[in-house]
Formats: sequence, structure tokens, C-alpha cells
Amino acid sequence: MRYSKLFGKTLKEVPKDAALISHKLLYQGGFIRESTAGRYYFLPLGMRVFDKIKQVIKEEMDKAGAQEMVAPVLHPKSLWEETNRTTSVGFELMSIKDRNEMEFVLGGTAEEMLVDLVRKFQISYKDLPFNLYQFSTKFRDEMRARGGLLRVREFVMKDAYSFDRSEEEFKKEYAKMSDTYTRIFERVGLKTIIVESDNGYIGGDYCHEFVVESDAGESKFLTTEDGSYAAHEDVAVFAIDKKNTDEEEKALEEVEAVRGTTMEDGVKLHNKPLWQQIKDVLFVDEQGRFILAIIRGDYDVNEIKLLHAVKAYQLRAATEEEIREKLHSEPGFISPVGIKEIVDKEIKLVIVADPSLRTIKNAYGGANKKNRDLLNMNIDRDYNADIEIDIALAKAGYKTIDGKELVAKKGIEVGNIFQLGFHYSSKMKGAEFVGADGTKKQYYMGCYGIGLARTMAAVVEVYQDEKGIVWPVQASPFICHLVGITNNDERIRDKADEVYKKLLDAGIDVLYDDRDVAAGEKFADADLIGIPVRLVVSQKTLAQEGRIEYKERASETAELLSIDEILKRLTVVKKEV
Amino acid sequence: MRYSKLFGKTLKEVPKDAALISHKLLYQGGFIRESTAGRYYFLPLGMRVFDKIKQVIKEEMDKAGAQEMVAPVLHPKSLWEETNRTTSVGFELMSIKDRNEMEFVLGGTAEEMLVDLVRKFQISYKDLPFNLYQFSTKFRDEMRARGGLLRVREFVMKDAYSFDRSEEEFKKEYAKMSDTYTRIFERVGLKTIIVESDNGYIGGDYCHEFVVESDAGESKFLTTEDGSYAAHEDVAVFAIDKKNTDEEEKALEEVEAVRGTTMEDGVKLHNKPLWQQIKDVLFVDEQGRFILAIIRGDYDVNEIKLLHAVKAYQLRAATEEEIREKLHSEPGFISPVGIKEIVDKEIKLVIVADPSLRTIKNAYGGANKKNRDLLNMNIDRDYNADIEIDIALAKAGYKTIDGKELVAKKGIEVGNIFQLGFHYSSKMKGAEFVGADGTKKQYYMGCYGIGLARTMAAVVEVYQDEKGIVWPVQASPFICHLVGITNNDERIRDKADEVYKKLLDAGIDVLYDDRDVAAGEKFADADLIGIPVRLVVSQKTLAQEGRIEYKERASETAELLSIDEILKRLTVVKKEV
Repeated sequence: MRYSKLFGKTLKEVPKDAALISHKLLYQGGFIRESTAGRYYFLPLGMRVFDKIKQVIKEEMDKAGAQEMVAPVLHPKSLWEETNRTTSVGFELMSIKDRNEMEFVLGGTAEEMLVDLVRKFQISYKDLPFNLYQFSTKFRDEMRARGGLLRVREFVMKDAYSFDRSEEEFKKEYAKMSDTYTRIFERVGLKTIIVESDNGYIGGDYCHEFVVESDAGESKFLTTEDGSYAAHEDVAVFAIDKKNTDEEEKALEEVEAVRGTTMEDGVKLHNKPLWQQIKDVLFVDEQGRFILAIIRGDYDVNEIKLLHAVKAYQLRAATEEEIREKLHSEPGFISPVGIKEIVDKEIKLVIVADPSLRTIKNAYGGANKKNRDLLNMNIDRDYNADIEIDIALAKAGYKTIDGKELVAKKGIEVGNIFQLGFHYSSKMKGAEFVGADGTKKQYYMGCYGIGLARTMAAVVEVYQDEKGIVWPVQASPFICHLVGITNNDERIRDKADEVYKKLLDAGIDVLYDDRDVAAGEKFADADLIGIPVRLVVSQKTLAQEGRIEYKERASETAELLSIDEILKRLTVVKKEV
Repeated sequence: MRYSKLFGKTLKEVPKDAALISHKLLYQGGFIRESTAGRYYFLPLGMRVFDKIKQVIKEEMDKAGAQEMVAPVLHPKSLWEETNRTTSVGFELMSIKDRNEMEFVLGGTAEEMLVDLVRKFQISYKDLPFNLYQFSTKFRDEMRARGGLLRVREFVMKDAYSFDRSEEEFKKEYAKMSDTYTRIFERVGLKTIIVESDNGYIGGDYCHEFVVESDAGESKFLTTEDGSYAAHEDVAVFAIDKKNTDEEEKALEEVEAVRGTTMEDGVKLHNKPLWQQIKDVLFVDEQGRFILAIIRGDYDVNEIKLLHAVKAYQLRAATEEEIREKLHSEPGFISPVGIKEIVDKEIKLVIVADPSLRTIKNAYGGANKKNRDLLNMNIDRDYNADIEIDIALAKAGYKTIDGKELVAKKGIEVGNIFQLGFHYSSKMKGAEFVGADGTKKQYYMGCYGIGLARTMAAVVEVYQDEKGIVWPVQASPFICHLVGITNNDERIRDKADEVYKKLLDAGIDVLYDDRDVAAGEKFADADLIGIPVRLVVSQKTLAQEGRIEYKERASETAELLSIDEILKRLTVVKKEV
């Protein structure tokens, strides 16, 4: 490709809102342009990178036995209603009616579409297992898009859906996909950390993110120095130390407590440790249920864990008015003890206790009345929870179950894999196969996503320097960048043209800067665009027995080589792609 | 690929609404499934065909110097308002608001998006010309979708947009794209006819459809036996013979005419030829203007030509009530003579005359009053038109301008190319480049589309027989279909597995039917799926010195060949792809 003819040249200016280095460099290099916030054009250079990444994904997915297909972009809304996702996804879902008044969802993920496709077939145990994948445009109506390709509203995702006969069979597929993802990212130059994460509105019991460590990322996770454990803040678990479990249970006692409403006010008044206090946090869910989360005073409640515990889609903090008028308790003095007896009859109140409450005895805290506290509260004896489950927020500095310290890291989530189990096949009628015994069974599912544009941005975040991008070969738009320093000398132009032709004949992808501009500008552009190998034809190089300058983008040193030597080297590079 | 593992097996049943052979065979063969009417899944087999066609298009577009990029699927509605297309496209346009109340159009074609992209750059004459193309999902809210892939509501289109410095430069690009399209279709086995056509809401002055002759098609066109002329019914022109132009103009005369309202009633009453009567057809456009189309009595009005003549988007027939109460004329007795003087003051009436009226003298017809006719009407003397332009509908049997007879044909429109000229660059602010003289100029545009799914359906319409599809190699999902007739004989299964492995090692795309089903079923499936070469390993073939049966799908005869000979032949076939 001649650079003079390429649509989308480099620019010196930077978009106003470019906070991310990948956004800045992909814009300046002529890879992308924004249409509206969060919706991007891929220019010819960017398209080549996109295709390189896509090809790696396709090869590895095919190698893993997955089969490519494609589903429509507009999903019948009725399918999303079958699984209740029109409710659970919330505002991120865009929907549209056609002129026949049929409603569609602009797909953000395609579990229902794939199940609906598979149930059109009478499949038997002989047809299973299979894994179907597609590259298709996805939509997320994000409230705010970040500049650049890291959080967008429209993007191409490789999404895959596996169908297995059993959990056991699924586990093998999940492991295979995990390995496949690691290899895909490795091939485009990215080292990924596999992080346990929350499944959001996807459903299922567990999932993992593939994260590229980077300060530009939005994915916060906790991990150990040795990497043996890594989990998103939303799901991370940690070891809870025992406190005074050996203590005798003392008699419950109500005392006057003229104090403020914070945990610290309680500590000061009673002169007891924070951990011995019960922390009570009250939420209201989308159905109007009140959720009282209780936990040991020195821990915080993780709202995502709490959401899952009560199977809700959304939580908000209860207001002071609601606490007083509906629960007949008092802000800052809530207590699980006796609360169920005092709330309004029509109120549905769910008490969720964190197991950390079992590591303390004779706890203190509010008495559901202003300026009154209870001392010596003990679980089972004085209060019970409707649900007792881990709802504690893990933090850096806490210990893992096997005693290693957790450290906080940030990264870019480039892919994720989800166990779905029977989540969809149990909700969607006919999502079943005929077993070897002739009976119908639900299939066991998983799903697997990679955001192509985000992967591209992650590569740039990792591979760049002060001069521009430094593409790894597998993701680079071209293998080499040929620069002719002609200074209006026809002889040099002819030589550069000849080298260009030889490279093309050898099947080497080459970007040829054939413009009539200064050498400095051409070198700066080559550094900005970041193709792995730069070749220079100039009067100086030609004076050296017609040699050509060969310089790798990642290296500071240049060599003078013959065209034959260059072709030999580039043919080796080409094979790596 | 092992057929036992392929998702999407063959079926005997046919979808209820399958009127088209391509719909029937692509469904039965396991290539596609309908999601909702006009929105299709491509199953793994269909996806492979899709990719083959896509690859051919990509190769030829690249060879022609076009550059691949991609634009977002959701287009800001404001862009479509700039060019007034939100009005002109009408109901086929789907639009949607995001949660920030920004309006988008689901793109059906992307002229505005491309101009908006290009105007983000300060381009100069040195950057031009260029041609940008993309493969992306397009949407058309068709009132009725046809079964199968011929008329759908969501589809992947290869759309390209050329930007040139001048009309002269553009014409070369248009010719190059025309050749490129012919070659693309030829490579996937389709002979196309280049048919002049109407540009619908795309704009510009002229365009051409690439049509595959087929009774399954919806594209009706007129052509000569020698193919020297081909035009869509909507735009076809023809030679109009002179009638009584030598006759003396007689005095205009109003006579009593107690008759019905048809042209034939006039002929009978006056005993004069149909051609001497004036045909008056009255329409109302989307702005409420009345359009009176007048033409020689033996011709019909072409509404598409009329639309363009008056620059309207939509026409409907005027009602009898409107004719009487607003125009103060009479249905069946409308006349251009004096009509402008009798219509309501607030009425905007546009008279459009076909040039055929200049081939007759002393015409007869209504007098704008019930049961009154005028005799001896002559253009210029008795009536004038606001617009005098060709609005005549061409028909089979008419003659071309150079005297050849027109015949009517039907076909499938697989691609089209449009001259856009300054249509978009004049409407969109900043759609310009800096010329060599330093002044800003609008660029001259063209656009070029290919529907991939429709191309796939067209291939099947052309290449099929009573047993199934007969894929041309370039569009086939695999190069060969290996069938093992094992009858539970491990030795034969091992041999078939060995052949499969050898084919894979040689890089031959092979579908291997490894199922435990009867030979007849396997053969029927192979014929239905239609892969060009079928290989059979059976007890019978193995008895012949370990040979393998080789049969081409398009041929009736089979041969017994050694594996080496087969590999040699298939390597040749592979190179054709």
C-alpha cells in the first residue's frame, strides 16, 4: 500500500477528551475516528489491525473445535422476556419496533438467540457437545462512553456458546476455552491474568475475566504476589479471623446510648473494639423489598454479593424516612434483634447475615430506637438471618484463605468466560436434547466473549513509547514500513519503487511512504504508526553498495542490509503472523 | 470437519412458506435458519459459503485499489436529515433513541456516514481519488419479507464509496467497479447482466444493477436479444413512432360525449385511434401537490419516471372527490386544456407531458366536464406542460432507439453501482477538498453495493438439480465430501479416517460423513449439500487395490482412484478457489 493513497493519514493534534494513550495514538496514527461518543469508524489502517486480531481468534477457536456461525443483530424481544433479561439488563438494553409493531432488542449478548436456534433442531446426545461462535456487532447503551476503544457503545465481539451433555463435559470445554483465550491473547502479545469475576446479568454460577494489567483499565481486582489467586473485587473471598468466640455469652442488655450514628460513635461510647459491633446496612430492591445486610463491624458489605444473595437486580439505600416510618427503627440504631416484630405488616424484610458474625460473641449495636443500644447480642440466641452467606467486601491487605496477602491491581478486561449451567436451558422451553436413554434433558451451557476493539486498545496500551505505537507483529497493520528519502531524486525514487515491488512480489505486507515530504516527517510518522520493521532507501544507503537501512521499531539500532537479506528476514517475520 | 460434529444437519422437511428453490435447499441442507421473518442465522455450513463469497469480493475490491474500513451500524439521524433522507427513504428506515435521547438510524446504506468521516479530514487533491468499502450489517424495514435470502430485512452488504476530483476521474472508477463486479460474480459462478436502473432514494443521475437472469428474481428488465441494451422497466427508454404529424391542425371543438370513463369508451364513441386520444393520469404527491401526467393514448405512464420528473418521493392516485371538488374537473374527462384556470386557487397543479404528445396532431379527449369531450387538441396551441419529459413506460415488443425489439426478462439483483455526482457533497457542509489551485471543491462521488446473502441465494438458484445444490467450487463450503460406508466394519472406518487425515494434511477442506447411518442417507445428504467432489471409501472400493471412489457432484460418472491421484486432483481444485 502506498501511503500517499492511504485514506487516514497521521495527525499531530490529539482529540480533546483523549485521556488514554491508546485513544491518542490510534487517533493520531490514523487507525480510528469517532462517529458519536462510543461509536467508532475503523479506518483502513485500523481495519487491518482488527482483521489480524480477528484472524488469530478465528484460528484458535477453530483449532479448539468451535464452529463459526452468525445470528441476526436484532433479537426478538420476546426471547429476552422468556429469560427475564429485559428486566435484569436495565437501561443498557436498546429496543426498537419495526413497522409491523414487532419488538426487537439490539443484541448486547446472544444467549437467547443461540438457544432459540438450537431448539429449532431435534438434537440428540450424538450431536453434543458443540460450541458455536460468531463475530458480530453488539450494543450497550452505556450512560457514559470513555474516549477511545476501552468502553464503547457499539463494538464487534467474538461471542461463543457451548452446549454440553453434562457439567463434567462442560468443565472440559471451559478449561479448553480458558487455554484458548490465554493463547489468543499471547499470540497478539498480551499477557493475561485470569480473574474470578461477577457475571452481571449473564447468569450462571461462576465466570472469569481475562485481564491485561494496566492503569488504563477499569477492572479492579485483588491478587496475591505469586498470582495463585486473582478475583474481581465484586467476588473476591478472604480469610476471616476468629475474634472472641471463646467468650461466654452474656445476658442481652439494653442501655442508653446518646451518640452519633456512625460506627466510630459506637466504638467511642462503649469503648469496645470496632469488630465487636454489628454493622447494619439497609437497602431496598427493585421489587420494594427491604434488605437488611448485617456484618462484623470491621468489614464492609459487598453490594454485588448481596444482590446475588437475595436474587435482586438493583439495590438502593433505604431512606431515613423509610427506616423510621416503615420499619419503625432509627437510622444509626438499626438492629437485627426484634426488628421483624416491629416493621409494618405489609413490609417484606429480608435479613442477610455475613458469616463473620459467627467469629464474635456479645456484640453491641443499635436497639431500633434513638439513643438506645443493645449489648451482648449473639446470633442464633438473639437474632436469626433469613440468609446467611458471604457478603463481605475483600480489600487489599486482607489474607486469602490460604494465608497470602491480597494486593489490589487494575487492568483491562479483554475477554471473559462464563459457566451458564442450566440458567438459560431451564428458562427457555424446549432447550433440551434426547439422551441415550431416550428421555429429554436440558443441556449445560457456557459462553465466552472477546471484545476485538478493546483487545486492540489493550495492545496499544502495552506496546507504545514516547514516539508512538510499537505493534507486535501479530497485530500490526503491515509487516514493514518502507520509507523513500528521495529529495526529488528520480534515481532514489526508482530504487525505492523497485524495493516496494520486490517486497510485494515476495508477499510481504508493506506500507510504502512515497510522499514528497521531509525525511523527518516520514520517520516521525513511521514511529507513530509503529509497524515492526522500518526500511529506508536514501542516497546515503544507496551509496553503501545499494543497501537498505533495516531498523526494528522496538530497537534503537539500524543495520544496512542487501535486499536479499531483507527479504529473507521478513519472510521469517511473515511466518510468525 | 466431521459431519457428526457439525451443527446443523440436513432435514427432509421444507419450511411451509418456501416458494423459492434456494430457500428450500439452503434450509434442508443446513445452511440457514430463520429467526424472525427476513432475519436469518447462518449456520456453520452457510457461514463457510458466506466467507468464500466475502473473500472473493475482498480480493477483487483490494485488487481494484479500494480500501476496507468500517463505520458504525447506528448512524446519527442528524446526518440523514442533512441530506433529507429521513423523508425520502420513508418507512423502510428504522430509528432508535439512546438513553441520552440521541437519535440514530439503523443504517440501510452509508453515504452520509462516509461523507461525515471524510470531512473530518482536511483532504487535498493529492489524497484523491480513493474508494472506501466495508462489509457491514444493513437494515431495511421491508413491509413483507420474502422467504429465503432474496428479500430480507437484515443483511450484510459490501458497500463502497468512491471520492473523485472530477466527473472524468469518476467515470474511470465507475468503469473499473463495473468490471470488478462482473469478475466477482463470475468467480462465484454467476453470469450477470448489467441493467440500467432506478436509483431509488440513493440519489444521483444514473446507476446500474447486476442481474442474474432467473425466474426467482424480482428485478424485471427489458433487453434486446443481442444484449446490447438492458434497462429496468423503471428507467427503460424506447423509440416512439411518429403518427399524424403531417396533418393540418384543425380548430378546437367541444362536443357532447355520453360515454364511460375508459380510454376504450373514447375510442368507440369517436371512432378514432387510441393513439390520437390524450391519456390524463392525476396523482397527489407527499406535499399535497397535484400532478397531471399526460401521454399519448397508446402508452402508459411510468410512475418512477414521473416521480423523478417532479422531484417527489411518493405519489398516490387522486380520488374522484378531489378531481371534482378541488380541480373542478370530472373523472374520465380530465383535459390539460384550460385546467389551470378552473382549479381551486390554493391548489398547486403540475402538468407533466410526455414527448409522445408531439407525435400526434388533433388529439381528442375529455373537456373537464361530465359527458363533454374536446376534439383537435394540439400541444403549444391549446395546452402547455410545466414539464415536458419522458414519462412513458417501456414494454416488451417496443423498439429500442436503434430499432431492436425489447424483450422482458426477470432476474435477481445481486449488486448495483451508482453515480452520485455531487448529490451528497453538495448537501453536506464541508464535503470538499483543497484543489491544486488552493480553492475548495466538492468531490464527485459514486457508491457500489453487493448483497452477500442474495448472491449466495442466486448461486443456489442457478446451481441446483432435483437432488440438491451443485456448488461451484468458489462458493462451496468445502472442496470435497468424504463418505465412509463402514457398515460397522472397523477396517473400513480406519481407512476412511486415514483418508480424512491425509486430506487435512494436504490442506484440503473436507467434510467427512463419519456417522453410523445407511449409505443411501449419506449419498442423499452429499447430493443435497452439494459439495463439488464426493469421495467414497467402502468395502467395494477398498477391494479395488485400496482405491477410493471419486465423483463430481455435477457429473453422473464415478471413477476409482488412488489417494495420491485424488490428492493431486483436489490440489488443482483448491488452487481454483
